[in-house]
Amino acid sequence: MNTPFSMTKNLFELPKDMIYLDGNSLGPLPKSAIDRVTDMMKREWGEMLITGWNKAGWMQQPVDLGNRLGRLTGAEKDHLVVGDTLSIKVYQALASALAMRPDRKVILTDSGNFPSDLYMAEGLVKSLNQGHKLQVVAPEEIAQHISEDVAVTLITEIDYRTGRMHNMTDITALAHAAGALTIWDLAHSAGAIEVDLAKAKADFAVGCTYKYLNGGPGSPGFIYVAPRHSSIAEPALSGWLGHAAPFEFEQNYRAGLSIERMRVGTPGVIASASLDSALDIWDMVEMADVRAASMELSNLFINTLKTSCPMLKLASPRDAKIRGSQVSFHFQDGYAAIQALIARGVVGDFRAPDIMRFGFTPLYIDKDDVLVACKIIADVMQNSLWDRSEYKIKAKVT
Amino acid sequence: MNTPFSMTKNLFELPKDMIYLDGNSLGPLPKSAIDRVTDMMKREWGEMLITGWNKAGWMQQPVDLGNRLGRLTGAEKDHLVVGDTLSIKVYQALASALAMRPDRKVILTDSGNFPSDLYMAEGLVKSLNQGHKLQVVAPEEIAQHISEDVAVTLITEIDYRTGRMHNMTDITALAHAAGALTIWDLAHSAGAIEVDLAKAKADFAVGCTYKYLNGGPGSPGFIYVAPRHSSIAEPALSGWLGHAAPFEFEQNYRAGLSIERMRVGTPGVIASASLDSALDIWDMVEMADVRAASMELSNLFINTLKTSCPMLKLASPRDAKIRGSQVSFHFQDGYAAIQALIARGVVGDFRAPDIMRFGFTPLYIDKDDVLVACKIIADVMQNSLWDRSEYKIKAKVT
Repeated sequence: MNTPFSMTKNLFELPKDMIYLDGNSLGPLPKSAIDRVTDMMKREWGEMLITGWNKAGWMQQPVDLGNRLGRLTGAEKDHLVVGDTLSIKVYQALASALAMRPDRKVILTDSGNFPSDLYMAEGLVKSLNQGHKLQVVAPEEIAQHISEDVAVTLITEIDYRTGRMHNMTDITALAHAAGALTIWDLAHSAGAIEVDLAKAKADFAVGCTYKYLNGGPGSPGFIYVAPRHSSIAEPALSGWLGHAAPFEFEQNYRAGLSIERMRVGTPGVIASASLDSALDIWDMVEMADVRAASMELSNLFINTLKTSCPMLKLASPRDAKIRGSQVSFHFQDGYAAIQALIARGVVGDFRAPDIMRFGFTPLYIDKDDVLVACKIIADVMQNSLWDRSEYKIKAKVT
Repeated sequence: MNTPFSMTKNLFELPKDMIYLDGNSLGPLPKSAIDRVTDMMKREWGEMLITGWNKAGWMQQPVDLGNRLGRLTGAEKDHLVVGDTLSIKVYQALASALAMRPDRKVILTDSGNFPSDLYMAEGLVKSLNQGHKLQVVAPEEIAQHISEDVAVTLITEIDYRTGRMHNMTDITALAHAAGALTIWDLAHSAGAIEVDLAKAKADFAVGCTYKYLNGGPGSPGFIYVAPRHSSIAEPALSGWLGHAAPFEFEQNYRAGLSIERMRVGTPGVIASASLDSALDIWDMVEMADVRAASMELSNLFINTLKTSCPMLKLASPRDAKIRGSQVSFHFQDGYAAIQALIARGVVGDFRAPDIMRFGFTPLYIDKDDVLVACKIIADVMQNSLWDRSEYKIKAKVT
């Protein structure tokens, strides 16, 4: 444990002449991932073939991987499982939660949720046709809307655009006081900040593994169900791998014990091998250290750009304690600016309408990277012609 | 096109001293798959990072792969898409179909369905709580139960245990005459027999790609929606990648055009790379040739064992035209027998209560393989002590 970040950085393939500040969207390739996947394909799939399900542990792997993620998110052992996609896991959590509060019809959520969460909720509400209402309020208004009408809150802990952070513990306590359940989307939390699901008394949590966790493009989602609910929660997506005895091939569904019931279909083993190698790196560090380093990096970034780039208006909270591991700015020509930065090797991304977003990931980004990135950003911002903006500082297009 | 099977066989990694008759459960590793996946990971993920979604075509890939599967299943262009798992795709198809027949409450299915299909249906019925009924009849009784109460038939074309085949065209016509819709599960059809979804006028179809199609353990599922329904079908699992404009990040869901709306979350790109290389082999052959060869192999298998193994009672149809690409036998000690065969290098599998199952996959299994397998099977069956069975021919345990 506690491998210094100067060493974890060497465990990733990072393109030369690139400072990758987009690990909040897609983490980079761990150096060991190709060998791990190759080994899984050659030795397990190629040689064991069908027997790999047991011999190589493929069948059990989603729970094993879940337990390793559990260490990063404060989940109790055997209460977090990987599989499917984040969107599917949102649906599962929401369907289960609504069934646990049959007399309540309000799903309380906020406009800082990733849209897919809202879309999945919308689809479920429409399918159920039981009078549920998806109430979307501003993020800062969540607390005041928690009432005894609310069946469940569906909240992304960290806003994907701005990095603004909700207080999981406080909101969960408010929800519980009103008799409501909570679903926390950890897409921008897992691997970014310290999360303690058990301590916060979260009811359900969901997330993905391809952002901060570096599992690879489209690597599986995950779901957490608190121990007190895990044998009560009805799995709406009642697939065979959530059955109590999948290989009995019974005609009727019997939900598996505990988190196993949140498994659905046959797990993607190749993707799991990649995620497995990414988690080896996570096993070497403590989230408290990652979080401390990320706060230092993002503060350095904000402070450095404050003077050199007055045209960038901070969209993230100034206080690192209530900011995730990303920094966003409003800039009218943000799309063009991000393109110009990418051309110069500083990779961030753009989110409509005007957000320039940069992620800080201490496993492979250090202070030197931040300072070099700031220099390039200052150069691009100061010396570009922003056609439609007020910042036509110099008539030079980079 | 029309590469001879003697050549396609060389395109797979097949363990020496093994005759693999379980491709109906998990297809073997295509030799090109590791290079393809390695290239995707190294050059696309490693070097392009976030830009891979567009530059490497990751975002579009599920539809591209779907079109290649469409050639094997008779789907119209851009009406089949890969993603998620078969269980999830069953749920999507069923939810859409039920919403299209709001006045009907019966889901007609049969006991030859793979259990996960029944479980997913059961979960949906329970969630909807709108009085739907899952009517499970014997496979041969499907036709007589199609009535004007039936909203949709949910049928696996080929029974996973016995290889018994339904007549897709006839049942679809009966269903349509009664005003019902059809969902066809092609898990044991795609890559095994000729399927012509368009000609059969199927409404929905679903399947997986890790069996006959050789995509790798847990490779993605797929869904087909007939062109006449594809812009009407409501996606219950309304994830962001099924949105008409996913990157607009709108607050409300607008279903994408046509099959795109059946996409849900972020696609698994590593798994798709493996499937892509498996489909390269499928691009070289015609399903009519595969089917003809598979019938020849399975007939040879049945005929050869008929004399040498009278204790094996055929569980599959004798007529190859109504049998999928597998042959199953009843044998009381089938579990022990399959273990003994695996120990001798003939890999089939066991399905409770007494089914010994063998799959025939002409891409990499030929007549010599079948004859050698038959010899070993005869030796094991004739010379083993079956403790609990009537076939205690010789007191010799292999």
